[in-house]
Amino acid sequence: MKKLIDFYEFTMTCADLFEQKEKEIEYYDVFFRKNINNTGYAISGGLAEIIEYIEKFKFTKEDIDYLRSLNQFDEKYLNHLKDFKFTGDLVSVVDGTVIFPNEPIMIMKGNAIEAKLLETAILTYFNHGSLITTRTKRISEAASGRGVLEFGARRAQGESAAIVGAKYAFIGGAIGTSNYQTGMDYDIPLLGTMAHSYITGHDSEYEAFLAYAKKFPNDVNLLVDTYDTLNSGVKNAIKLAKEYLLPNNLKLKSIRLDSGDLAYLSKEARRMLDEENLTDTTIVASNSLNEETIRSLINEGAKIDTFGVGENLITSSEQAVFGGVYKLVAVEKNNELIPKIKVSDNISKTITPALKKLYRLYDKDTNFALADIITLNDEQIPEDEYYTFSEKEPNKNKVLINYYVKDLHTKIYENGQLVYQVPTAKESKKYCELDFETIYPEIKRRLNPHEYYVNLSTNLYNLKYDMINNIKNNTMEEEKIYAKK
Amino acid sequence: MKKLIDFYEFTMTCADLFEQKEKEIEYYDVFFRKNINNTGYAISGGLAEIIEYIEKFKFTKEDIDYLRSLNQFDEKYLNHLKDFKFTGDLVSVVDGTVIFPNEPIMIMKGNAIEAKLLETAILTYFNHGSLITTRTKRISEAASGRGVLEFGARRAQGESAAIVGAKYAFIGGAIGTSNYQTGMDYDIPLLGTMAHSYITGHDSEYEAFLAYAKKFPNDVNLLVDTYDTLNSGVKNAIKLAKEYLLPNNLKLKSIRLDSGDLAYLSKEARRMLDEENLTDTTIVASNSLNEETIRSLINEGAKIDTFGVGENLITSSEQAVFGGVYKLVAVEKNNELIPKIKVSDNISKTITPALKKLYRLYDKDTNFALADIITLNDEQIPEDEYYTFSEKEPNKNKVLINYYVKDLHTKIYENGQLVYQVPTAKESKKYCELDFETIYPEIKRRLNPHEYYVNLSTNLYNLKYDMINNIKNNTMEEEKIYAKK
Repeated sequence: MKKLIDFYEFTMTCADLFEQKEKEIEYYDVFFRKNINNTGYAISGGLAEIIEYIEKFKFTKEDIDYLRSLNQFDEKYLNHLKDFKFTGDLVSVVDGTVIFPNEPIMIMKGNAIEAKLLETAILTYFNHGSLITTRTKRISEAASGRGVLEFGARRAQGESAAIVGAKYAFIGGAIGTSNYQTGMDYDIPLLGTMAHSYITGHDSEYEAFLAYAKKFPNDVNLLVDTYDTLNSGVKNAIKLAKEYLLPNNLKLKSIRLDSGDLAYLSKEARRMLDEENLTDTTIVASNSLNEETIRSLINEGAKIDTFGVGENLITSSEQAVFGGVYKLVAVEKNNELIPKIKVSDNISKTITPALKKLYRLYDKDTNFALADIITLNDEQIPEDEYYTFSEKEPNKNKVLINYYVKDLHTKIYENGQLVYQVPTAKESKKYCELDFETIYPEIKRRLNPHEYYVNLSTNLYNLKYDMINNIKNNTMEEEKIYAKK
Repeated sequence: MKKLIDFYEFTMTCADLFEQKEKEIEYYDVFFRKNINNTGYAISGGLAEIIEYIEKFKFTKEDIDYLRSLNQFDEKYLNHLKDFKFTGDLVSVVDGTVIFPNEPIMIMKGNAIEAKLLETAILTYFNHGSLITTRTKRISEAASGRGVLEFGARRAQGESAAIVGAKYAFIGGAIGTSNYQTGMDYDIPLLGTMAHSYITGHDSEYEAFLAYAKKFPNDVNLLVDTYDTLNSGVKNAIKLAKEYLLPNNLKLKSIRLDSGDLAYLSKEARRMLDEENLTDTTIVASNSLNEETIRSLINEGAKIDTFGVGENLITSSEQAVFGGVYKLVAVEKNNELIPKIKVSDNISKTITPALKKLYRLYDKDTNFALADIITLNDEQIPEDEYYTFSEKEPNKNKVLINYYVKDLHTKIYENGQLVYQVPTAKESKKYCELDFETIYPEIKRRLNPHEYYVNLSTNLYNLKYDMINNIKNNTMEEEKIYAKK
């Protein structure tokens, strides 16, 4: 297996073992600080790959030999790695869940060594999965009901960006993919018929169309822009329909436009098709589409039924990074849980300490999500009424009533054992659709979305700011230990 | 093996077999149309992965069963895939070569089936490798001699984006990576020591520093921004140097700043270190750095020796897509080579037809590259004088003299056999450095770089524009076939 480990995870854990800290328990939160691309929400992804990774995670002889060759690690440590086996706990929101900044999406509990060695793998998969799922949801929103096809493999950032990315595109809203491996690995609809080379490889465009129709009579989708979209491609497609398909009781399913002014060309092509009563033939468009071009095409009244989206979806080129982080929030020593904090010179990089819970409150009548509340691990949300306030502006407060509560965390690992059944891509897609329906339209708005409430409980707020003030007052002194049972 | 195949490659090749075109030979160019991010050049990557892929490329029983389950493919085709073996030729520029838009970076010659089935794999690897190599070269240029470390795995777009991306970062100019698997797989220096969690996992920052120094006395690199960079981190690092390292004849190798105003903090930290005679201790900085922030830090006189670059390098977030394409340029029928063209509604998407050569002309005295000339396959560049002109502005012409000529294409496959020894990452890095030295500084300039000459030979130009005019004159007629021996 290929590992995702940053080198400092080895040096730190080697130092931990040297200090005999290998049995100390550490808690890490996975969270992100800011929505990508001015979106009001994000959609989580990557949990399935994290599980796949942890299930295979061990060190081979090749690993040990290589690490030894670096002359930095002692044999005791190398032996420890040789016998490595994950023994920790993981809770997480499930793939396809709507998530927001600064909430604990996952919490890892593990010994000092295993918890550190999993940091990069967890982040890489979470960041990639969430990036593509979130981006596709936005593109699907722009397409407002029309289909979005994932066509991006060739422009993806490598093999797994293409294959795993296409899966998260499907979960986030794409109706299918051109990526063969993704179709096979995750049982996702495969789409695609011909490239320009297929057309130019024949002596004429019409011959190419006819040859294709003879081989795939029930799936005639024709690429029409190889020579001239309206004067050649659409005319030849119509000719094929009249001379070959209709006489044989076959259908011209779709045409695909891949260059030029897609608004104008789609309207003209639609008119030409309709004039020949080919009203069932749909129009697919592609060519470096992104969220904004799709929105603009729809506003211009383009007659496009399906959008093929390539590079801008699979690389999320408008914002290519999902900034999930993995931060120590507590340690356990002698059965005592000690919250930990990192105070940064950038205030936004200061973390929320302690082992926590993440609750979502829904309106009992409408099922819309009202707020997410982050609490200490042993707190409950009362059933009838909840007082909440903004961390940034504590005077901005609100009383919530008439709600029901959901714990957003699902147990994934307990004592190193997988206790979660990974859903299929289709199940995750369905889950994502239903979850997205619970979010107010104001949060989904493209421009200046309303900021969803993600608030700390009073107890957690007090703990966090006491710790921050204490560190400020005691810089250069030892960090004061806050003990909490 | 995971395959990179877009579904249309199956439908097209199935249709080809149905037409008994499986022995027809096709030629495809790999090229890109535009430099990323206003750069005047690009650096090629991905060839090593393309070779690795082709070497393993075959269809398993699982593939055949899955394709059969789609009820679109006939048994004759599935049997053909079962026996699939690559038999074609590939020429390519080697990884680490400076490349320019619209020149044939690779040329694939294969039968109609194998050449089509390899499209996506070739493009995905080429685009990803070239994206990261080009981006890293730009970032290294910005760092002007200071080291760049690749730290991006956790923000990469999946597993291979992280692992293979870090290799191309190294080839493009990074001095090392934090990515363990990349270090092991490609023999690349590994870097990194500690995260904030290592510090917060101890009772105090000083205890964490001391514990680390005891375990790794010869590699003391300390992260100093966990609580307060200047008032805590740097002071504790200096304290460690004075109380533990120097008395034991050990060194404080470096400190790392990871938040706050890096220009200010680095200058203050430098002053504090120098006051204690720790002049050899270097300063590493990280925190969402990119090309522009690095340039700006250097302009401000920041005292940073090494830049750790994460997400903006590994995802090339400023421009996340390298737009390489794979286009049919010729077919061979009855031993006759027939050039092919695709004329697009977007003029910039029109391709250059025919089987071609790519030559680079260098100044005999300075070794600077003067121009790249694309010719027909059987043309030679004369030894003494060459008349060249711009395709976009044919009146803009130039006579080149006092040059020597290099054929940029290396034979990679002949008749399906690999005839090329893949260099190590270190060799490719060295090659890239030397190749980059042959490029005029005007081409490397950040803003408004001079456009490097990439010109067509007169014969190729005439062929291309005759074909374009002919298609324009004959839209809706059969494409006229240009026969050329």
